[in-house]
Amino acid sequence: MKTMKAVVFKGKGRVAVEEVAKPKPAHGEAVIRITATTICGTDVHIIRGEYPVAPGLVLGHEPVGVIEELGGGLEGLYTVGQRVIVGAITPCGQCFYCLNGSHSQCGGALGGWRFGNTINGAWAEYLLVPDARANLAPIPTGLTDQDVMLCPDIFSTGLAGAESGQIRVGDSVAVFAQGPIGLCATVGARLKGASLIIGIDSMGERLEVARRFGANVTLNTQDGDPLPEIKRLTDGRGVDVAIEALGRQETFEQALRAVRPGGTLSSLGVYSGKLVAPYDALYAGIGDQKIVTTLCPGGKERMRRLMAMIENRRVDLTPLLTHDFALDDIEEALDLFANQRDGVLKVALYPNAVHSRRLLEAAGVGAIDDQC
Amino acid sequence: MKTMKAVVFKGKGRVAVEEVAKPKPAHGEAVIRITATTICGTDVHIIRGEYPVAPGLVLGHEPVGVIEELGGGLEGLYTVGQRVIVGAITPCGQCFYCLNGSHSQCGGALGGWRFGNTINGAWAEYLLVPDARANLAPIPTGLTDQDVMLCPDIFSTGLAGAESGQIRVGDSVAVFAQGPIGLCATVGARLKGASLIIGIDSMGERLEVARRFGANVTLNTQDGDPLPEIKRLTDGRGVDVAIEALGRQETFEQALRAVRPGGTLSSLGVYSGKLVAPYDALYAGIGDQKIVTTLCPGGKERMRRLMAMIENRRVDLTPLLTHDFALDDIEEALDLFANQRDGVLKVALYPNAVHSRRLLEAAGVGAIDDQC
Amino acid sequence: MKTMKAVVFKGKGRVAVEEVAKPKPAHGEAVIRITATTICGTDVHIIRGEYPVAPGLVLGHEPVGVIEELGGGLEGLYTVGQRVIVGAITPCGQCFYCLNGSHSQCGGALGGWRFGNTINGAWAEYLLVPDARANLAPIPTGLTDQDVMLCPDIFSTGLAGAESGQIRVGDSVAVFAQGPIGLCATVGARLKGASLIIGIDSMGERLEVARRFGANVTLNTQDGDPLPEIKRLTDGRGVDVAIEALGRQETFEQALRAVRPGGTLSSLGVYSGKLVAPYDALYAGIGDQKIVTTLCPGGKERMRRLMAMIENRRVDLTPLLTHDFALDDIEEALDLFANQRDGVLKVALYPNAVHSRRLLEAAGVGAIDDQC
Amino acid sequence: MKTMKAVVFKGKGRVAVEEVAKPKPAHGEAVIRITATTICGTDVHIIRGEYPVAPGLVLGHEPVGVIEELGGGLEGLYTVGQRVIVGAITPCGQCFYCLNGSHSQCGGALGGWRFGNTINGAWAEYLLVPDARANLAPIPTGLTDQDVMLCPDIFSTGLAGAESGQIRVGDSVAVFAQGPIGLCATVGARLKGASLIIGIDSMGERLEVARRFGANVTLNTQDGDPLPEIKRLTDGRGVDVAIEALGRQETFEQALRAVRPGGTLSSLGVYSGKLVAPYDALYAGIGDQKIVTTLCPGGKERMRRLMAMIENRRVDLTPLLTHDFALDDIEEALDLFANQRDGVLKVALYPNAVHSRRLLEAAGVGAIDDQC
Repeated sequence: MKTMKAVVFKGKGRVAVEEVAKPKPAHGEAVIRITATTICGTDVHIIRGEYPVAPGLVLGHEPVGVIEELGGGLEGLYTVGQRVIVGAITPCGQCFYCLNGSHSQCGGALGGWRFGNTINGAWAEYLLVPDARANLAPIPTGLTDQDVMLCPDIFSTGLAGAESGQIRVGDSVAVFAQGPIGLCATVGARLKGASLIIGIDSMGERLEVARRFGANVTLNTQDGDPLPEIKRLTDGRGVDVAIEALGRQETFEQALRAVRPGGTLSSLGVYSGKLVAPYDALYAGIGDQKIVTTLCPGGKERMRRLMAMIENRRVDLTPLLTHDFALDDIEEALDLFANQRDGVLKVALYPNAVHSRRLLEAAGVGAIDDQC
Repeated sequence: MKTMKAVVFKGKGRVAVEEVAKPKPAHGEAVIRITATTICGTDVHIIRGEYPVAPGLVLGHEPVGVIEELGGGLEGLYTVGQRVIVGAITPCGQCFYCLNGSHSQCGGALGGWRFGNTINGAWAEYLLVPDARANLAPIPTGLTDQDVMLCPDIFSTGLAGAESGQIRVGDSVAVFAQGPIGLCATVGARLKGASLIIGIDSMGERLEVARRFGANVTLNTQDGDPLPEIKRLTDGRGVDVAIEALGRQETFEQALRAVRPGGTLSSLGVYSGKLVAPYDALYAGIGDQKIVTTLCPGGKERMRRLMAMIENRRVDLTPLLTHDFALDDIEEALDLFANQRDGVLKVALYPNAVHSRRLLEAAGVGAIDDQC
Repeated sequence: MKTMKAVVFKGKGRVAVEEVAKPKPAHGEAVIRITATTICGTDVHIIRGEYPVAPGLVLGHEPVGVIEELGGGLEGLYTVGQRVIVGAITPCGQCFYCLNGSHSQCGGALGGWRFGNTINGAWAEYLLVPDARANLAPIPTGLTDQDVMLCPDIFSTGLAGAESGQIRVGDSVAVFAQGPIGLCATVGARLKGASLIIGIDSMGERLEVARRFGANVTLNTQDGDPLPEIKRLTDGRGVDVAIEALGRQETFEQALRAVRPGGTLSSLGVYSGKLVAPYDALYAGIGDQKIVTTLCPGGKERMRRLMAMIENRRVDLTPLLTHDFALDDIEEALDLFANQRDGVLKVALYPNAVHSRRLLEAAGVGAIDDQC
Repeated sequence: MKTMKAVVFKGKGRVAVEEVAKPKPAHGEAVIRITATTICGTDVHIIRGEYPVAPGLVLGHEPVGVIEELGGGLEGLYTVGQRVIVGAITPCGQCFYCLNGSHSQCGGALGGWRFGNTINGAWAEYLLVPDARANLAPIPTGLTDQDVMLCPDIFSTGLAGAESGQIRVGDSVAVFAQGPIGLCATVGARLKGASLIIGIDSMGERLEVARRFGANVTLNTQDGDPLPEIKRLTDGRGVDVAIEALGRQETFEQALRAVRPGGTLSSLGVYSGKLVAPYDALYAGIGDQKIVTTLCPGGKERMRRLMAMIENRRVDLTPLLTHDFALDDIEEALDLFANQRDGVLKVALYPNAVHSRRLLEAAGVGAIDDQC
């Protein structure tokens, strides 16, 4: 039996780099060799035991790679050696939910999220991709792994926050929290045509990135409640759309209070407790407000569209990639990311590289890419 | 100064029939003579002191009448003597909110609701109608006051619950509470093309009306938690759309739990406290669910459309009119309605009639109409 | 090699009942035994040589049947012996078009339409169903083959005309031509909540069915141009939505002229020549009108939803089934249907029956169903 | 009687600068002093006699100015001396069409377009604004007349082409013709989040502006049929959305052929003859394509939103203002504009200035603004 290196969840608080069986594709499946992946806040939740997955599972859900082997039924659609990404969410396209347009809920609640949740994930040398026909998205020529690495999850999620908010050209938008998802929601608000975009966070350096990514105004919560200024900037009304990108009661409530009558609160956060909507923030239930929750959209078409935005230079997300690590260095990478040290935004992981990109670059070796 | 008879709010718990000044229309305004109106649950809240309005205000927001006098700027559009209804909500059509499509929030939060809230209302012999060009809706020939009496508020509101839920043909829908608004939401679900409609209430007689109005299945909450049966009827998934039509935490939470991943909770209730969304009912915030709140749509076009549904025999709401009263009998009418006695659903009030319709009919006088 | 009986296209103007190979399902495919099917206007076009298909092809695209054999990958989803229908359109759910929501254009222009077009169709004892996971729709208990026989194509198509027209509750709608598709569009307009529905045709008996199916007003084109009356009924404006259900320049132009500024022409017709939109009917291109074309939606969820409408008694289409034939009698059936003789609307074909339903019923044998 | 200078339509082919009566505002109306306006292609059509207006009418529909006098009912909403723009389209917000969301068709077909069409227009020292409460849009502090001069018509129209096309983030878009409207449609496609934008025109200098405004690819029709390259750039499918911005059969047909199955043709052109949709370009009427026509959206909220886009630096349209003229120089300005000489895109007209901006600037006088 062939094996591969993978980061395995060992129970609450522990992961380990281990040799596990290399996957074989059945009909309709593919195996890709991972060339790059990254760490998501959800992975941190899982490792902390706040979201339950089975011990023994390979984690990670943001794959960039090369097709290694194809199962039956994919002839003429893909070729071995082709560079691809796969969304964090891998819908089948054929079930009740998918055929009703709820692809991320494929097969049932949260069911489209399989990698590193219900099946082995991307923190490994190889990854088995289910429903490959619906999920393998070729990388356009000329784009690097780094260019597209954030498409599988946070670009898709952040943009979806703007899309679910049904932002119209000229809308005012407030984005609560400017972590990687919030920054991508800020990008999404810009891409959907918002006029005024207000970025809110407690970390000055993240607000600086927010301004580069499209926020006209940034508010630091350490300077006090952002609501009075949001109201002032919108003639006392509140914004047309608020996006919650943290997953806490406090930001949920702030975001709700920031929304004008008739406006929309688009919620991206993963909540670990109940949500409370105060009577007055909801205008007693008759303010014509909407609250929309969204799980990251996936599928190959979503990925193709996101990469087309990058290819056509509508957006460049590489400034979010602040640190690089080899897969072997996962614990160090997790420590840095989970504790938001050193200005970290997103961490790139290279499963097939001995050393990290930055180190190699410092040594004059050049960018790690597919070749490594 | 000319005077008229009107029901005046005298402070918490008290109303009185008094003589007040008869209104005069300014430019763009009209005065109508009220021939019929009704009592809404919101009126009960106001009288109980649960929703604040100024003492001295004439209550009521569901006017049916005849044009008595027209202010300037309405020449060629309307004529004195024309039978009209006016929505409970009277948008101006020209402000930030109206031009952004949030007509019910005209001018600011809940601002479209003026009658019996911020200006004198319909429980009177005469009513001043602001922005008359946008709000006077002629009654089609052949329709009685009773036919159209529920258009100004509960038909518009109930249907809006189905519309905000974006019900698609073939959707499964659960409607929580089958009071007048909930019954109209049930009608709305049918008019929008729902397949399975589940009506829920604690009163058997209301469930019986629900079945006449389009519910295929009714569940009595006195028989236990309706959720298991809702899940069973939807292959374990939950409904595509749930409509909350009561305004309590309990029904809000049940409705949220009844909604499948990717589905919509359309909330019509007026809440007097905070709303709590449990973590699991929200699928941790990533179930692609929507929560939409709605205030009754108004304006003459809304009214025209609703009356066209009645005129073309798509719906008949007269079974909801269970009792008739003269305006002088307001206290008796309120007592009956507020305490849901005697199978009451909606109470018709006739400001210009000495006796009520049913009494007159019993006396062989025939239906009260415009002429009385 | 096993064989089966099937109706084969023999080139322009000719079909023949022949023995052909019985299909075997590959991975992801199923074979169903056809218990009932029907003839569509498109089949007539094909046989007349007006729409090109390859000689030797088995025709027909409206299958009702029983699962005979399942290919790999369908375990746990379906069982042999299960009663199912399959849409005329069989999307894969996994390609560019499906993942962009254009399921009927699966794989490319008109690509979702495979049965009797690019692969063998339903006028046979057995039918191979591609992408079975996305397309096999179990028939609800209690519904007969006749109840659901029109779901695969004309109910789906007619309703889609109303859906693409984005009919809102209270809209006025005109449906041009009341053949089977137009009658289902009339049903669709009612299911979407239209107020006034105007049915237009040149055959009085079809207009009579239109009134039963929801038209308030019917206009016979033999009595003259319907436009003046349409304008009169809509205060001179034209309807909110017009549906074209014939496929001719004349009805297209009438429908366009019937649409008010800001309204929608929803076109269902299959056109065999260019379409001309006169300058004035288009308001010089600045009347905010929309023209939407639609191909029948398919897939198992669409079928489930349509059958749910029938199961919940929102609609009964069996009045459209005017004649029954055995598959052997295909030429007689085609002759009747193509020439619109004898009040024919839709013809049921029973591939596994020696004699037709009506004949058997006359003989006291009872309805042909799955058992035959 | 006070008089003012205005450009009057004298019948086919002729305009004249004349003294006419200065307007007085009635209830709900306002008079603004025009500080800047511009010439639209529609004005050229009118002067050429291709679109009928009454001789004696003051032309022009793109007003920038200062409130001179307010009629009744506007107290507290506006003040004399306030800088404002008004849309080319001035909806009332209160009629059938406005309340149904078709504001540009206010009162009837094309009825929202009043300035220089059915009432006196903006090529004058003063302009009477009807329904002022719905139409006066204050200019944000810090923006010049030049910054906002294109909001009343071409920015609103071009963006509406993208909006009506329902462009989604990641869509591919082709814009046929890159005159001022087409360039604004290109801007609109970018603001709505298109990935690939293809600009098409026959003039190289306009294509150069298109690239600055957001087109990734430009195709010069003098180099041959653009369709093969459009297909090549979209994997053979065609674009998701094509925008027609010229108003000719040739570009309409090209745009239709450029649209993939399931895609949308958004038409902005004003057509002076019938439109022909070839059978194959329409996929026989079953390609799930949409054709949407759009008239410029107006109203104060539309104007506020467009100016907010400029204020927040999402777009800068001043590069389109290539030439300046005093109102007295209207014939010279029309000659230049109508014949597309000298690289002209849009011409600014200054009714209250003796000389044009560029001339004054050359003389060291500084930008003409409100003060002049």
